[in-house]
Amino acid sequence: MVDFALIGAGLIGTVHAQNIQRHRKARLRYVVDVRADAARELAERHGGSATSDAQAALDDPAVEAVIIASSTDTHASLVNAAAAAGKAILCEKPIAVDLAEARACLAEVAAAGVIAATGFNRRFDRNHRALFDGVRAGRVGRLEMLHLTSRSEAPPPAEVARRSGGLFRDKGSHFFDLARWIADEPVVEVFAAGANLIDAEPARAGDVDTAMVTIRFASGLLGHCDFSRRTAYGYDERIEAFGSAGMLESQRERFRGVAYYKDDKIVADGLIQTWLERAEGTYMAELDDFLAALDGKRPPLASLQDGVEAQLIAEAAFVSARDKRLVRIDEFGSS
Amino acid sequence: MVDFALIGAGLIGTVHAQNIQRHRKARLRYVVDVRADAARELAERHGGSATSDAQAALDDPAVEAVIIASSTDTHASLVNAAAAAGKAILCEKPIAVDLAEARACLAEVAAAGVIAATGFNRRFDRNHRALFDGVRAGRVGRLEMLHLTSRSEAPPPAEVARRSGGLFRDKGSHFFDLARWIADEPVVEVFAAGANLIDAEPARAGDVDTAMVTIRFASGLLGHCDFSRRTAYGYDERIEAFGSAGMLESQRERFRGVAYYKDDKIVADGLIQTWLERAEGTYMAELDDFLAALDGKRPPLASLQDGVEAQLIAEAAFVSARDKRLVRIDEFGSS
Amino acid sequence: MVDFALIGAGLIGTVHAQNIQRHRKARLRYVVDVRADAARELAERHGGSATSDAQAALDDPAVEAVIIASSTDTHASLVNAAAAAGKAILCEKPIAVDLAEARACLAEVAAAGVIAATGFNRRFDRNHRALFDGVRAGRVGRLEMLHLTSRSEAPPPAEVARRSGGLFRDKGSHFFDLARWIADEPVVEVFAAGANLIDAEPARAGDVDTAMVTIRFASGLLGHCDFSRRTAYGYDERIEAFGSAGMLESQRERFRGVAYYKDDKIVADGLIQTWLERAEGTYMAELDDFLAALDGKRPPLASLQDGVEAQLIAEAAFVSARDKRLVRIDEFGSS
Amino acid sequence: MVDFALIGAGLIGTVHAQNIQRHRKARLRYVVDVRADAARELAERHGGSATSDAQAALDDPAVEAVIIASSTDTHASLVNAAAAAGKAILCEKPIAVDLAEARACLAEVAAAGVIAATGFNRRFDRNHRALFDGVRAGRVGRLEMLHLTSRSEAPPPAEVARRSGGLFRDKGSHFFDLARWIADEPVVEVFAAGANLIDAEPARAGDVDTAMVTIRFASGLLGHCDFSRRTAYGYDERIEAFGSAGMLESQRERFRGVAYYKDDKIVADGLIQTWLERAEGTYMAELDDFLAALDGKRPPLASLQDGVEAQLIAEAAFVSARDKRLVRIDEFGSS
Repeated sequence: MVDFALIGAGLIGTVHAQNIQRHRKARLRYVVDVRADAARELAERHGGSATSDAQAALDDPAVEAVIIASSTDTHASLVNAAAAAGKAILCEKPIAVDLAEARACLAEVAAAGVIAATGFNRRFDRNHRALFDGVRAGRVGRLEMLHLTSRSEAPPPAEVARRSGGLFRDKGSHFFDLARWIADEPVVEVFAAGANLIDAEPARAGDVDTAMVTIRFASGLLGHCDFSRRTAYGYDERIEAFGSAGMLESQRERFRGVAYYKDDKIVADGLIQTWLERAEGTYMAELDDFLAALDGKRPPLASLQDGVEAQLIAEAAFVSARDKRLVRIDEFGSS
Repeated sequence: MVDFALIGAGLIGTVHAQNIQRHRKARLRYVVDVRADAARELAERHGGSATSDAQAALDDPAVEAVIIASSTDTHASLVNAAAAAGKAILCEKPIAVDLAEARACLAEVAAAGVIAATGFNRRFDRNHRALFDGVRAGRVGRLEMLHLTSRSEAPPPAEVARRSGGLFRDKGSHFFDLARWIADEPVVEVFAAGANLIDAEPARAGDVDTAMVTIRFASGLLGHCDFSRRTAYGYDERIEAFGSAGMLESQRERFRGVAYYKDDKIVADGLIQTWLERAEGTYMAELDDFLAALDGKRPPLASLQDGVEAQLIAEAAFVSARDKRLVRIDEFGSS
Repeated sequence: MVDFALIGAGLIGTVHAQNIQRHRKARLRYVVDVRADAARELAERHGGSATSDAQAALDDPAVEAVIIASSTDTHASLVNAAAAAGKAILCEKPIAVDLAEARACLAEVAAAGVIAATGFNRRFDRNHRALFDGVRAGRVGRLEMLHLTSRSEAPPPAEVARRSGGLFRDKGSHFFDLARWIADEPVVEVFAAGANLIDAEPARAGDVDTAMVTIRFASGLLGHCDFSRRTAYGYDERIEAFGSAGMLESQRERFRGVAYYKDDKIVADGLIQTWLERAEGTYMAELDDFLAALDGKRPPLASLQDGVEAQLIAEAAFVSARDKRLVRIDEFGSS
Repeated sequence: MVDFALIGAGLIGTVHAQNIQRHRKARLRYVVDVRADAARELAERHGGSATSDAQAALDDPAVEAVIIASSTDTHASLVNAAAAAGKAILCEKPIAVDLAEARACLAEVAAAGVIAATGFNRRFDRNHRALFDGVRAGRVGRLEMLHLTSRSEAPPPAEVARRSGGLFRDKGSHFFDLARWIADEPVVEVFAAGANLIDAEPARAGDVDTAMVTIRFASGLLGHCDFSRRTAYGYDERIEAFGSAGMLESQRERFRGVAYYKDDKIVADGLIQTWLERAEGTYMAELDDFLAALDGKRPPLASLQDGVEAQLIAEAAFVSARDKRLVRIDEFGSS
């Protein structure tokens, strides 16, 4: 039984709290949030004590693992504090607002020798995993093109969008991570084109709401990501892995399986409407992997290092879109 | 909070126990099974006391509702005992091995004035429900043909098959019920053709493993069911509702959404492999409806009467297949 | 180069005329129709002389093959005349209005030793053929259930429907033939349920517009056909071949491949709207097989005997629906 | 009836010859090819006289229209000669190897006042057209992202690839044209990333075999093209048009509609195996549009100007991939 301190009682924190409660090897010991009400409410429903003092929770020797699901700007210092306290860490992405800070976290964690995972829950999507397994098993032969689509059903609240570091860091890093994970080789160049087509708000903060990113990997493999903050048809996520020997497709997921035949149309039930419904199962699988990593003294599927690598691509994409030029990864130093 | 006595600690009993534990308005008070070990194990995991004495559980005034998930030959006497004890009843189908006995249960339940539901969980399949809603809303116009397919991934153990009353009563009654529910009108004639294509065992017990059933409803609407006890490709269930103004299809469900493009083929993930995985969500929805019925003093979605009506069609199908002739429903008296 | 006499300048006759003109081994020598205008028009567009005298065309020694696409009531005498004249015959189904007459044609053709084909063009549907090939190759193992659906976009004109012998003989015989062809074993019993749900007209002529037919084959294999004279969504044809080792599906065909994602729906292009568009390619393949049969002195894919066998099932279905009973094929004597 | 001179008796020339013969308003008067045998063979099969003298054919006043389907390096001078002779022109893309030369053709054609079309046959793909119509009708609202995929089943012969101007000009221009046509607004920036993943041959000629191109349109709309010279699964072409109010998808096309259910897989018939089979119907529709343009004195669906515009994007993509930088369209002067 692993005792957890959960930091952050927001949307994702709530998902983690439920899963910890349901998982037979996990127990919720602390819910930490500066908003005392939110912490208390979550603790009441899923166990543990509510507190606004993260350090106190970290100081409790009974706590073995920490999930960091607070706002992005608090991640880095919490990772460092948790590492110093010798706790295993599962940190939501991005690791830090700033790349240098994220890299500094890596050093702290390495020094502390703790297990540290990044919350790349999409690696646990059953479809994406099966695609990954197929690529690894050689079913597509040499990988030549990789396509990742993620179009949100609706933009995040302006405040959240601002604090999250923008489209490339917030949404992008998930898919840059998937691309790296599937490709299994280093990224060398990034080109990104962004646009403000949905509303003017992000533009004021230097952000975009629509973007395409081209990624060149070391072998020549080309990756493409397409992002939007809003669709008119639910949450749209899919991956294509095209190779010399075949193509694997992680398909869009429908929310139900009914079709209506009428006139010259077939009207079928559409996509799962929200990203959270689509991702629901992935958080439990992520928690399960994290606990197995603790148990087996093995790295988690998505390490903190993976978090920093994805962030690096996000930085490159941000610079590329801003400066309208191809950006080489080595411009940011070796990761 | 409704306290339950759960009678039967087998496969379906276990599903009910889990759901009662998870449902915030339900609590498991007794797990009843003649197999003391099975009862104890289930009670330990999901709450309540284990007993082999059903009557004792029914005598406890704290128990408000009873779920009957024991073997078919015990259903009728348990329904009667539960009704006499004034409990709300959710009984797995069929109500009784014998039609007359099932009808007698109806009378007991009516006399006792308790809420009584039949465990027609497939009415709660999200796809089937959406098809039902569409038909009710007039999307197919006048309903003209109805197709229901249910092909199991593997035959039940011989012992289970024998005690369940055979293919028409066991599997069939679920789909006869769906047909009645969707059609919303009386059945007048039934023709069934059965065959023993999978193994010789059922034939010895007067049963079949493969069957097609044609049902004529009062308006002329034609229904067709196709049943098999074994596929080579997982669990296969689908419905088509064809009408004057369109067609609604409750589609087969795939277990995952990956496709592999290779040579002149697209190899996609196939059907959900077992009926239980496909039906998983329906039991909770059924429990939820049952609790809402208790709360609102309203009939459950599938009443005990519905159970008897479906059983009547099953009887007619059995006789038709045995005697190789069209059977009129009114041969069995008015239901 | 084979010279043809085409008898019948209606809808199907026109399709044959076009195909004869396009086929590099065929030439149209006569277009025969009692409606002189229709014959002339077709001959002008696709070659040959127009005549209303079928015998004259049959007497021309240059004519090697005859296609009989006139109204059903003329088929039998034309087949006999063509056989007597020593011509190869491709006759649209049914062979005759009456089963005895059809059987008599068989004897004439056998005596004359000519090649004689029935116009079961659906055997040449590329999807159905691939399903057939898969079944023959053992991909479904032992065949256990066979489903055939054919729902027309609109009823034929009342006059055509009446002369065609009704739903079971007209539409049904195509699918009874497909069932026999795929099953590759004798039919032993037939049960049919018909209804008049679309309009009252066919009922007056003893015909139905909606029907379900259950066919039992010698091995126990069960077949099901579902027919309707009218859909609200185009022409709907599909086949399922279910067996011990897998299932093959000849799918519905869409007329175009565009989908629109909007709200919680995916609105895709629907089915090919008319049976003739769906069947378009099959007539040429049928002609090609017929010419290859002539060239290779081998039987055509669908022989005249096949036409009589399918008609026998149609008769049994007609009697079954009329008399509301299971009909044994041997009630009609041995075919 | 329009009399044609067809210049080029290769693969595409053969398709044009067949279509001219089949079209009731067109007639083949000359087949021109420097390879006398090829010209003669085509003329024998589809009509007209064979010649190796293009100018002689252009001098014949009976010739009203010219189709230029010879090798790319001959296009420009033939367009100019045909314009000078006052003929209507349908020229395969690209108009010229060199952009300046292509622009010069435009001037000649304008001066001559003849109707001139570019052979952008993919505009006539029924799926793409329906997507285009939907976009124009406002079904996706404001267009925000456009995806075009074209992956060939196999690389062209090395010689053909070299003479065609490389991947961006040869394959690319078709899809740059589709993007422009669907977007209906000017392109402002192009970024292309190419790679040599299939074989080393194209690299020696400065060409690539795999590429991704990002196109920014004036409104901020982002377009993406993904090209490969070889798949392991047939010809793969699809388009997505994503907008503020919905998404339209021109789907991959399967060659047949059979599926096999076995174990945990559904093995469906795959994609049309070759681009020519996929494109088959488009050439006739293109010819039909060209003839209607002549008849109605209206511009063809894809004008020579459209050809030059697409070529401009191809040039920008070529430069971008070579120089690894974002290229502005106005670097090439105004078109």
